[in-house]
Amino acid sequence: MNIAVAQSGGPTAAINASLLGVYREAKRSGKVDKVYGALNGIEGVIDDRLVILNEKLDTPEKEELLRQTPSTVLGSCRRKLPAPEIATDVYERIFGVFAKYEIGAFFYIGGNDSMDTIDKLSQYGEMTGSMIRFVGVPKTIDNDLLFTDHTPGFGSAAKYVAATVQEIIRDSSVYALDSVTIVEVMGRNAGWLTASLCVLKAIGEEAPHLIYLPERPFKVSDFISDINEVRQTRRAVVVAVSEGIRLDFEDHADDGRHQVLDGFGHVGQMAGAGKALERVVRRELGIKVRAIELNVMQRCSSHIASLTDITEAEEIGAAAVNAALSGETGVMMTIERLSDEPYRVRYSQTKLHGVAGLEKKFPTEWINDEGNGVKDEAIKYFFPLIQGEVPIRYENGLPRHFKL
Amino acid sequence: MNIAVAQSGGPTAAINASLLGVYREAKRSGKVDKVYGALNGIEGVIDDRLVILNEKLDTPEKEELLRQTPSTVLGSCRRKLPAPEIATDVYERIFGVFAKYEIGAFFYIGGNDSMDTIDKLSQYGEMTGSMIRFVGVPKTIDNDLLFTDHTPGFGSAAKYVAATVQEIIRDSSVYALDSVTIVEVMGRNAGWLTASLCVLKAIGEEAPHLIYLPERPFKVSDFISDINEVRQTRRAVVVAVSEGIRLDFEDHADDGRHQVLDGFGHVGQMAGAGKALERVVRRELGIKVRAIELNVMQRCSSHIASLTDITEAEEIGAAAVNAALSGETGVMMTIERLSDEPYRVRYSQTKLHGVAGLEKKFPTEWINDEGNGVKDEAIKYFFPLIQGEVPIRYENGLPRHFKL
Repeated sequence: MNIAVAQSGGPTAAINASLLGVYREAKRSGKVDKVYGALNGIEGVIDDRLVILNEKLDTPEKEELLRQTPSTVLGSCRRKLPAPEIATDVYERIFGVFAKYEIGAFFYIGGNDSMDTIDKLSQYGEMTGSMIRFVGVPKTIDNDLLFTDHTPGFGSAAKYVAATVQEIIRDSSVYALDSVTIVEVMGRNAGWLTASLCVLKAIGEEAPHLIYLPERPFKVSDFISDINEVRQTRRAVVVAVSEGIRLDFEDHADDGRHQVLDGFGHVGQMAGAGKALERVVRRELGIKVRAIELNVMQRCSSHIASLTDITEAEEIGAAAVNAALSGETGVMMTIERLSDEPYRVRYSQTKLHGVAGLEKKFPTEWINDEGNGVKDEAIKYFFPLIQGEVPIRYENGLPRHFKL
Repeated sequence: MNIAVAQSGGPTAAINASLLGVYREAKRSGKVDKVYGALNGIEGVIDDRLVILNEKLDTPEKEELLRQTPSTVLGSCRRKLPAPEIATDVYERIFGVFAKYEIGAFFYIGGNDSMDTIDKLSQYGEMTGSMIRFVGVPKTIDNDLLFTDHTPGFGSAAKYVAATVQEIIRDSSVYALDSVTIVEVMGRNAGWLTASLCVLKAIGEEAPHLIYLPERPFKVSDFISDINEVRQTRRAVVVAVSEGIRLDFEDHADDGRHQVLDGFGHVGQMAGAGKALERVVRRELGIKVRAIELNVMQRCSSHIASLTDITEAEEIGAAAVNAALSGETGVMMTIERLSDEPYRVRYSQTKLHGVAGLEKKFPTEWINDEGNGVKDEAIKYFFPLIQGEVPIRYENGLPRHFKL
């Protein structure tokens, strides 16, 4: 039997570690002949663009480099498959390619949309009596998948964001003058990554002084009074905002802000909240202000990945292979947290049906009453996920990356 | 005899290493009683806000943490002193504080403007027959100081920028679609940091495909045709631009771009070139485009500092103490490169007069004829500066920082 694996959705620092986990466990099992990698997610299956990973990863060193390489080494896609009941053409094509390569199990590493894809493949397989097993391996820096304690990729993003904001705090307070620094963190609908900045409190940082998440309504006037409140005792105010916060443009007094956002916000692209708020602060308070967007760095900075995250990403890939080999199909692998301290997890699986299309929001009971901060209870959730450093192989002063 | 040291100008990852170098060498010399640190640069002297570093750095561990802490632990300022001939009040105050603390030598760690300050102090000292020695210790991520091969702080910034752009390259090429990624790098008048991205070629990366520096005029129409040229053979185009490139708004055909820049460019704040070009690409080419600003992270990311840079920063601080103890004054310390391979340097000094107010630009002979790239000759200049990794002390998953 051969197996196939593909990666889909947005890049993370951990998605190649999951690929490595699938590959190594398949080899180790002795039950898998070849491990195929489909290029650009499901599109690579549709277009018959598959590589034999056993040939690409032919030395232990290449395996090590793959683990520390960010983004998706096989490429990715954002293709949504039609419902299997109404459009069978594309499924016939996909299953034809699976048959051609004698694929007995297909692993799809991705986020919410990717779970939709593997769910549909599984449904079509069931409809047609296929014996192929379909297993989803979760990854997303958004941490917004249901039925899993957290998602691989999130811990590394959180570690990068916390380490970087700690450095930004140092940077922001050098001058003896009043200032506001606004850090915009990814998260369109779920504020997990922004909220994870509460870990800085656990290491003795006061900042970020204010944290705003998309789970709560955002009022510009409250934002300004929150800043003024912090300024009573602090000169350098540091604010963290999710890219997905909704500014209250309906408010007539905020027409000017609306125009501000127009200057930055692109339809369908959320980034820009920080810049919009930078202008509001400049106009309302007239003090030094700087917006910083952590942009794609927060999802691809593998040089400061979390060892906990990378280890789990590899282990959950391995667990997916074992699940498939023991007959599981139509499932997404999950991480179950057994305890916070000592931190222990176990891998399990859940039926794909019911995972896709739903988002796990940051719990509102962990947001403070003012809606401008995260309660300390959340720290114990985030803290274990950023622990440990991956020993990165450098060459010529730079981390080495694996390329196909 | 006591000495005093202060930090000024923009933060870097190496400026605290220079402070450590001054402190340690002063202790080692056996000729210095106390090392005072002035808070917020020369303002701390004017306002008599000095701390005794011997008390703050009372364990070897604190010294180690200081070295890996970014930004300026003593704080900074941007204060420009008046000419010593026309305004003696502030100088009397400064020299009064020096007398109060029995300061025999004053060290100012900073960039161009800071060298102006220490130059003026030195002039006033000479005018008034003071015996205090004044030594400037260079630092700037801009690498734009004359008479020194390079400046401490630059190598760490270059290493961060190269490592991050390498990760962005991985991130930018995951989808099978045409895209342009524009990375904006600091450098208002000098393109050194942006140009240093040529080191990625030396490790086998093709990107960035295009590099634009402020040393050459920038034409939006050429920019678009350059991108189209790259697109003949590459789907994911990666472009690096200095924040200081001047867009050609005079061109009537570019009125739209002018408005675009108006939407982002703030008077006196250059950042925004990348965002402006993002809009140009979106309109002219209609393909996926993303601008990424490396913002303050490029100057404060000590977690990925260059060991070469941090070592030199500490050594040049030590060399400054020795220069002062051997009678030098009115000088800025310099780094002289003895050879590229093996990389060897020696520390020396140059008269401050003639350093301040002048900028060292990136050599135009290292820019290609098209003005959209850096010649390979430049690689041997940059390459040694990013070598080596600083063993960072982590605690609870995050780098530890020293605080006063």
